[in-house]
Amino acid sequence: MKVPVAPRKVLVPGFRFAGIACGLKASGKRDIALIVSDCAATAVGVFTTNRVKAAPVIVGQKRVARGRAQVVLVNSGNANAYTGRDGLRLARAMTRRVARHLGVDEELVVPSSTGRIGCQLPREIVAEGVDRVVEDLTDDGFHRALEGIMTTDAFPKFATARVRIGRREVTIAGMAKGAGMIAPDMATMLSYLMTDAAVSRAALRRALDLALPESFNAIVVDGDTSTNDTVLLLANGVAGNPRLERSSRGFTSFAAGIAHVCRSLARMIVKDGEGASKLVDIVVRGARSKSDAGKVADAIARSPLCKTAFYGSDPYAGRIVCAAGYSGARFNPARLDVFLDDVQVVDSGIEVVDQVEKQAGRVAAKAEFTVTVDLHAGRATTLRMASDLTVDYVRFNSAYRT
Amino acid sequence: MKVPVAPRKVLVPGFRFAGIACGLKASGKRDIALIVSDCAATAVGVFTTNRVKAAPVIVGQKRVARGRAQVVLVNSGNANAYTGRDGLRLARAMTRRVARHLGVDEELVVPSSTGRIGCQLPREIVAEGVDRVVEDLTDDGFHRALEGIMTTDAFPKFATARVRIGRREVTIAGMAKGAGMIAPDMATMLSYLMTDAAVSRAALRRALDLALPESFNAIVVDGDTSTNDTVLLLANGVAGNPRLERSSRGFTSFAAGIAHVCRSLARMIVKDGEGASKLVDIVVRGARSKSDAGKVADAIARSPLCKTAFYGSDPYAGRIVCAAGYSGARFNPARLDVFLDDVQVVDSGIEVVDQVEKQAGRVAAKAEFTVTVDLHAGRATTLRMASDLTVDYVRFNSAYRT
Repeated sequence: MKVPVAPRKVLVPGFRFAGIACGLKASGKRDIALIVSDCAATAVGVFTTNRVKAAPVIVGQKRVARGRAQVVLVNSGNANAYTGRDGLRLARAMTRRVARHLGVDEELVVPSSTGRIGCQLPREIVAEGVDRVVEDLTDDGFHRALEGIMTTDAFPKFATARVRIGRREVTIAGMAKGAGMIAPDMATMLSYLMTDAAVSRAALRRALDLALPESFNAIVVDGDTSTNDTVLLLANGVAGNPRLERSSRGFTSFAAGIAHVCRSLARMIVKDGEGASKLVDIVVRGARSKSDAGKVADAIARSPLCKTAFYGSDPYAGRIVCAAGYSGARFNPARLDVFLDDVQVVDSGIEVVDQVEKQAGRVAAKAEFTVTVDLHAGRATTLRMASDLTVDYVRFNSAYRT
Repeated sequence: MKVPVAPRKVLVPGFRFAGIACGLKASGKRDIALIVSDCAATAVGVFTTNRVKAAPVIVGQKRVARGRAQVVLVNSGNANAYTGRDGLRLARAMTRRVARHLGVDEELVVPSSTGRIGCQLPREIVAEGVDRVVEDLTDDGFHRALEGIMTTDAFPKFATARVRIGRREVTIAGMAKGAGMIAPDMATMLSYLMTDAAVSRAALRRALDLALPESFNAIVVDGDTSTNDTVLLLANGVAGNPRLERSSRGFTSFAAGIAHVCRSLARMIVKDGEGASKLVDIVVRGARSKSDAGKVADAIARSPLCKTAFYGSDPYAGRIVCAAGYSGARFNPARLDVFLDDVQVVDSGIEVVDQVEKQAGRVAAKAEFTVTVDLHAGRATTLRMASDLTVDYVRFNSAYRT
């Protein structure tokens, strides 16, 4: 799926960016990136729920938990995942090295890695990369840094928002790399959001938590959860606005800005899902609980049968009904309704697509459409954004050591 | 994957079989089948756990719950699933019709359907089919009946066992149709086991329950659970052995025979998974609980990344480790071991495949191999049999209305 992105300058006051090639990627593309705030920023993050966490996640999660960060150091080409104690030592050594160059506390440096898993990072190459990437830092290096975090992404993913808080306008900018996997490597979703707003940690946490359910937590490419997934949000306060609290008047607009950037990045990640040809929004409503709504949405979003049907532009809802049925959610099958965009294909548990096959077929053939499942069992709703399952996905992920 | 099956005669004393084409399949192949015991048989079954149950499952489950059955009436080509009250009425009418022909109690007839879902069965065609299929009943009609239950199966699936109980030898025979799906139709696993042994209902139930975990409950093609899945076991007692109880001396051999037939059928179903090119046994051991072992095995067996790696003959275990990590099972990643057959590729949480790449590569390239994951967290074990995810799977399932 092609998403044209106009290359444009992204500036966030008080942030500098860098991205260079240090030799971790065989392709010679940029593979080490740096995001540096002029001062220690308020920081919140979310990290993979996978029990097997990559070394940089273990290090970074602990540091971000303290609420402050100033530097993000990212390498692509090697995920430093399940590399044991040596991997942990190397992750710490990298952050120590960059901290020394920049004259900041090492505990304020958050490391991230993405790429092949299960092999140690080459120590000398990375050390030299760290030494050189600090030289590359500029105000307008956003796109260089973004290139440095990419792996199999087909296009760069970024989004911005400008929000007025009182008399000040603040900037929110985000970059992301997608859930792409390359055999025998590992999918990783990395996303970094920067803002010059002054925000309390509680308010920053709240803004991110509000944004997650309909953005990064709603995307399904293949249901595999990477060992390295990271979303990081830094607010350095350079804008000079009165510090935003959760109760502040400006908080709602700020949170809306964060949500907009998160949602934009998340949609781009799904669009760029490996081999993906479609983006399907799955809306479940009328569930007895949020958990039941999630079960139905996840079952549909992950079902290989539903996903190949999306790929095949199949307007028949049998597989959707079936997935809802085995999801574990409680509902009466005789009350189930299913819509493709606004065309009803299942009415009270009975397939009615034959009467609207042309309209339903047109929807199913679109590059983006919405499947709405109404369980008529309660009032809870949820959303997932799913890619389809294509021949290219299998080709790509089965090509051992491409 | 081709599995040569020598066509041979299957006879089960006291059972007759039939299978004819009545016009439900456009191909003109057999699409209605009948299994009839000379007398009411002891019956136990397991049915789909999907909340959306097909009409024949709703009818049959209730009847089998009473513990006796004499006739199984199966049609392929149309699953009679999510067809509302009309579907239920038709399922009952079909069994009434065949019961009248055979002079048996309608409540002793178990209906099954498989094929396209979401559309009503054509009443006249089925009625005529029922009238004609009873004419086809013979002792040696096993293979005709088997053909009648098949849909997209590439080869017929059956297995037999002979077991000595005291001085009598009893026969166990089973037929199955695989979890194949054809757009916009629905996967269904149907399996019927017949024996002439005299067995109490409790002992029959126990024998089936013992067989399930390592057979039908261990197979994963794509993780979708059909609305029609059925396993039925009938024992008509014609062999004249002293009735087997759970405490009988012969029970262990009988249960082993049932387990052998179930396991053979289950393996054939995975081998014939749509587009499958490999059968991978996934063994999880050292789990804290049976449930944890199942979580890890299911995560691996269902992960599109693991399944495409199997397809690609990739010996790297990163995706397996990752799936174990997000499965929800409790274990220490630093103690995890992974083997491909007897080649260790992960040792105490660290990838060691580089040292044994040739050997591991040879295993991963085999048409059948075993992935063993040792969590070192307890003593529970489990098994799954999984197919790989291939380009053909996607082609097949995305071909709308092939």
